Amino acid sequence: MDKSMQQQNMNIEELKAAYRSGELDVNTFLKTKLAQAKSDTSNVWISTISEQQLEQMLTLLESKSIDELPLYGVPFAAKDNIDFAMLPTTAGCEAYSFQPTESSSVVKLLIEAGAIPLGKTNLDQFATGLVGVRSPWGAVNNSFDPEYVSGGSSSGSAVAVATGQVSFSLGTDTAGSGRVPAALNNIVGMKATKGLISCTGVVPACKSLDCVTIFANSTSEVNLVLDIAAELDTDDCYSRDNLQTNSAAHYDVNKTLAGLKVGLPEASQLSFFGDHGAQALFESSVERLKAAGAEIITINFQPFLDAAKLLYEGPWVAERYAAIEAFFKADPTQCLPVIQTIVGGATTHSAVDTFIAMYRLQAFKVQCDAILAELDCVLTPTAGTAYRIKDVEADPIQLNSNLGYYTNFMNLLDYAAVALPAGLLPSGLPFGITLFGPAFSDRMLLSVGAQWQKIIDFTLGATEHKLSDIELSLSSEAKAGQVDIAVCG
Amino acid sequence: MDKSMQQQNMNIEELKAAYRSGELDVNTFLKTKLAQAKSDTSNVWISTISEQQLEQMLTLLESKSIDELPLYGVPFAAKDNIDFAMLPTTAGCEAYSFQPTESSSVVKLLIEAGAIPLGKTNLDQFATGLVGVRSPWGAVNNSFDPEYVSGGSSSGSAVAVATGQVSFSLGTDTAGSGRVPAALNNIVGMKATKGLISCTGVVPACKSLDCVTIFANSTSEVNLVLDIAAELDTDDCYSRDNLQTNSAAHYDVNKTLAGLKVGLPEASQLSFFGDHGAQALFESSVERLKAAGAEIITINFQPFLDAAKLLYEGPWVAERYAAIEAFFKADPTQCLPVIQTIVGGATTHSAVDTFIAMYRLQAFKVQCDAILAELDCVLTPTAGTAYRIKDVEADPIQLNSNLGYYTNFMNLLDYAAVALPAGLLPSGLPFGITLFGPAFSDRMLLSVGAQWQKIIDFTLGATEHKLSDIELSLSSEAKAGQVDIAVCG
Repeated sequence: MDKSMQQQNMNIEELKAAYRSGELDVNTFLKTKLAQAKSDTSNVWISTISEQQLEQMLTLLESKSIDELPLYGVPFAAKDNIDFAMLPTTAGCEAYSFQPTESSSVVKLLIEAGAIPLGKTNLDQFATGLVGVRSPWGAVNNSFDPEYVSGGSSSGSAVAVATGQVSFSLGTDTAGSGRVPAALNNIVGMKATKGLISCTGVVPACKSLDCVTIFANSTSEVNLVLDIAAELDTDDCYSRDNLQTNSAAHYDVNKTLAGLKVGLPEASQLSFFGDHGAQALFESSVERLKAAGAEIITINFQPFLDAAKLLYEGPWVAERYAAIEAFFKADPTQCLPVIQTIVGGATTHSAVDTFIAMYRLQAFKVQCDAILAELDCVLTPTAGTAYRIKDVEADPIQLNSNLGYYTNFMNLLDYAAVALPAGLLPSGLPFGITLFGPAFSDRMLLSVGAQWQKIIDFTLGATEHKLSDIELSLSSEAKAGQVDIAVCG
Repeated sequence: MDKSMQQQNMNIEELKAAYRSGELDVNTFLKTKLAQAKSDTSNVWISTISEQQLEQMLTLLESKSIDELPLYGVPFAAKDNIDFAMLPTTAGCEAYSFQPTESSSVVKLLIEAGAIPLGKTNLDQFATGLVGVRSPWGAVNNSFDPEYVSGGSSSGSAVAVATGQVSFSLGTDTAGSGRVPAALNNIVGMKATKGLISCTGVVPACKSLDCVTIFANSTSEVNLVLDIAAELDTDDCYSRDNLQTNSAAHYDVNKTLAGLKVGLPEASQLSFFGDHGAQALFESSVERLKAAGAEIITINFQPFLDAAKLLYEGPWVAERYAAIEAFFKADPTQCLPVIQTIVGGATTHSAVDTFIAMYRLQAFKVQCDAILAELDCVLTPTAGTAYRIKDVEADPIQLNSNLGYYTNFMNLLDYAAVALPAGLLPSGLPFGITLFGPAFSDRMLLSVGAQWQKIIDFTLGATEHKLSDIELSLSSEAKAGQVDIAVCG
């Protein structure tokens, strides 16, 4: 395999520029990337397409021009609870596996836009977990240190991006599954407003809360993929039309942070689970935002934490049971023991409990909404610390729960959130921050995220590339393009 | 008692005009109305204020001018599941009864606007029923024929208005309780958008669905009362701020019906339960709207009916249990047998059932919303027929269910609805129509309702008054007012 292609900068615009200039041949490149995926040793993939299937897709691409397809020849990965017609859907459970007759709505849209799915990625079984170790296909290794968890449940999708195997990937997120693994692998993870991306053809976790999420190295790429992926779908009863004020055009790569009102939990409400390095990195993140002009406003984080508690202590786990009821009833032992425990516990909750919990959630939401109404967004860590795989195996429930401290409330409260890289801990593991806001604040969050990525100007994922290099090369290409036009015109 | 005062036209603007002109003395008049309420023989009231309590309120009124209080000296009634600090709240169950320390938010707002609550009205116990016979205080008699049911559960409140005992009244509505009794007593019943009127201080039925409703003789009076009653309340987690486009100023008493797109269920989806008179009256109502310029568009009503079925067959009954759990558990036999059966059945539903039912509801809502999106509003009967009390006593569940055929889906689907009088059946009982639309279409619906009331120009409630007489007298007063200004100016 061509090592330089394996280490190719995977930025979507860079790739397209390289295809256009002839620096890269799309067929050769994608065959190399598929071979690279097939030789992955981090447990990223559950299945990959065959060389023949890739040929089929490349043939389809031949009749199209790079200018008409915004994701022309861009390799991506889909979490294995998202249907893709060429491969089975396992949801991380061999016995549950089925061959979908068609792709999920979101995968269809991305393929139509020219993107090439190389395969299906490993996950915490039935998307139940934030660790990335709850899989019969093995724990996904963190892209920075294989002894550490990758985060989950969209573990393989995050590591596929972080290790440069694909340009972007799809995850799902019910309680943090699209954000925690982004943080632990130094990439961007977007849990867009519930309903913007259709869940048709996605195995539900908690159907009323589930979101399809996007992993990429930059907010600009997330913005582009979200633009293609977000389409109203009447087959998904939770699908919602986007607001005009939240369209891709409202992504502003040059947004100023001056005067941006950023909420920050009271110090006593933050938890780093003893990780002083993480705490220091978070505090310096706050200072960097402040230095960029943001107004940091201390908020009461308690109602958010109270809402979060409802998710795991309350009746929502019944949604996980409802999602796989027939399969689970037939033989619960086909699931991993930890999943049996969690999903099996769902049947103890009554309808009365459920409504009472919904009233409590609604009351918390009123409090949280009132806090958000005074702000542009809220800043938190994405995960308070990073854990070793062996530590999680020794204490699987508590450490999993710790990883969701800043993420569990988001879907319940119907908020949008973007997880952003924020540097490395003394351990060498990545640390991330999250910005969140009300539903339909996606593009505002991505715009703030773009500034944040400029501020930190950090390497992307586990690669040596930087966003500033990419922007430089793109801007010279853009300049070259302008000169061309000037000459022709 | 002064018979002429008992038969006084109770229209709010008429009353205020009569106070202003000195034709009526507010103290004398309200004392007469209280005496009239105390001598009611239709089982309208569970409790009324004392003469001393009335004196207290009249004293408070003395320091205020009629011009600063939009409901100055206007007598009203509150359903006895809505707290009013001067009287106990029973919810139709003596054993449950308690003395509230303060009035509900809505009663406070009305009193602040000058309205005088004469008492608390009879209801189907715990607002569970659409018949008005499920009460230890006796079946509320229909205002047209005491052998017939008044409709429920806001039975007393509807009959109090229909019989001219008060100008307006408050009900509650979870499944039709604020509309069915309006239809059966020839008055207007408004189930405004969920959350516009606070439920703080209201005994819940199904807390996620409950609405406080308004009964009056005209859409103009409903518009005025709604304007005062609708205020965001952070103590009610389901409270919602009104949209500017749905403010009282958007009530248009001269709205044209030309081109109004009115949905009409397919004929096979309408049910009159064998009542050919009701069917004929509904058909002539459609023709009258058509003659007024409305465009009648046949719609598929099935998804609305399917959503309705979820309410009584699904887990929402668990909300009724949750509302009175401690009381009910302690001794269910303190409730009427029919309430024991209904509420007691709630504990069989699981959290899993609940979430599955919510998914089904959400799927129906997508279908119903798509139908509404093509229309201004939908027209249905309010109740397909009227029943005798003895018939309901013989078959209490089925006939109650029949009365909810056109109302049960409304709150589940988050729609606004206004029930309007539509004439008399051959039996001499009133028949009503309902117009409904999406959340926040309240003022549009009331505006269409205003035209409808002009078209039918029918007597109000069980009185001999007509809206056309009132408007005549008001417009002469308005003219007189204009002349005054002209003279002064």
